[in-house]
Amino acid sequence: MTYSAAIRRSIQGHTMHFTSQTLDALPKRTRTNLINSLSGFKSANLVGTRSGSGQENLCIVSSCFHLGADPALMGMIIRPHSVDRHTLEYLQETGCYTINHVHEGIIAAAHQTSARYSREVSEFEATGLTADYHHDFPAPFVQEARIRLGMKVVEIQDLAVNGTVLVIGTIEHVLLPTGLMGEDGYVDVEQAGTVTLSGLDSYHLTRRQGRWRYAKPDRTPQRINE
Amino acid sequence: MTYSAAIRRSIQGHTMHFTSQTLDALPKRTRTNLINSLSGFKSANLVGTRSGSGQENLCIVSSCFHLGADPALMGMIIRPHSVDRHTLEYLQETGCYTINHVHEGIIAAAHQTSARYSREVSEFEATGLTADYHHDFPAPFVQEARIRLGMKVVEIQDLAVNGTVLVIGTIEHVLLPTGLMGEDGYVDVEQAGTVTLSGLDSYHLTRRQGRWRYAKPDRTPQRINE
Repeated sequence: MTYSAAIRRSIQGHTMHFTSQTLDALPKRTRTNLINSLSGFKSANLVGTRSGSGQENLCIVSSCFHLGADPALMGMIIRPHSVDRHTLEYLQETGCYTINHVHEGIIAAAHQTSARYSREVSEFEATGLTADYHHDFPAPFVQEARIRLGMKVVEIQDLAVNGTVLVIGTIEHVLLPTGLMGEDGYVDVEQAGTVTLSGLDSYHLTRRQGRWRYAKPDRTPQRINE
Repeated sequence: MTYSAAIRRSIQGHTMHFTSQTLDALPKRTRTNLINSLSGFKSANLVGTRSGSGQENLCIVSSCFHLGADPALMGMIIRPHSVDRHTLEYLQETGCYTINHVHEGIIAAAHQTSARYSREVSEFEATGLTADYHHDFPAPFVQEARIRLGMKVVEIQDLAVNGTVLVIGTIEHVLLPTGLMGEDGYVDVEQAGTVTLSGLDSYHLTRRQGRWRYAKPDRTPQRINE
């Protein structure tokens, strides 16, 4: 590999070591790719919204995370000056949005929603995905997705530290194909073909290594029999 | 599958449909498994801390997420009344913690750190993982991990909505094996064996489906040549 001088300086034998200072010295794009890789694998979801005046929007979001099961809450981080801006605006207007798992059959279309389309363009039309309305829910689901959630905004918080916005929502609707959910409630997202993201642009399917029983201090780790 | 009555009522032909009301009617454990599955794949990280008095702690955290590349920030959600409580306490005392990617060779030990050990027990000793100190950083890294970050606390915020805590940290140190980082800065976390979590207890390796070029409105989706 033909590393830049700034990267080469970080090599110490078999290890690379960056400090906050040497990270700062990297070219912007290199730094962005590197930092985006470091949290590990990310969720890959399409967030669907519709403005008060009926304009639809769809946006891939890699920052959705579980916040709590009781009440059922999810968080996501939105960058208000990025391609996320219409999503944020519309979910503020209506208080509703959908979360739709990206699966292996819709990766290209899902990634394409990250392009900076102008306001009057619906990413549904631009990418060939289909807006789908269910159960009087005001935000569009993605028809092609398999696991789909209708979300109601609970709280929107500006994070002063870097100007991003934390959106917290509660789960109002869960739609999923019969057969994916086990008796214990676990939903087999691998069987659903749900993909995971690394960095800014790498999409991955998964291979289960096992499920593990609830851990206790006085017991060695045990697999759940599958 | 022998679904409970509460689950059976959600089946509508080939689709299952839960509303916030029918979710509430599920047994607690079923509901917890279900909700934890719905955000999609999660990152799997070991968070290392050491108290002011020298007590070490290690805890698996599935809620680390990328918050921004400039400055380099990561967030994570901690439950202050759960097994996370020592982690939160110690990183508040010292302002430092480490994030260590879980890989396929340390899944059982990593999962075992989620057991509710008492304060005087170090999860390093209990699970056989090795605490490792580098570059005068006060929090312990996991020697067996391949991708390791030294983090400084920037902000700790209580989320009133459900009593969890959002910890925001900045990346002070990045340690990774030579050869994982590409010229463009992307770190191949799949090659590193980093795993991803689904639900509360399912661990997965990954299979890359491709990297995609930065999307533009006037261009069809294009793969990055690998």
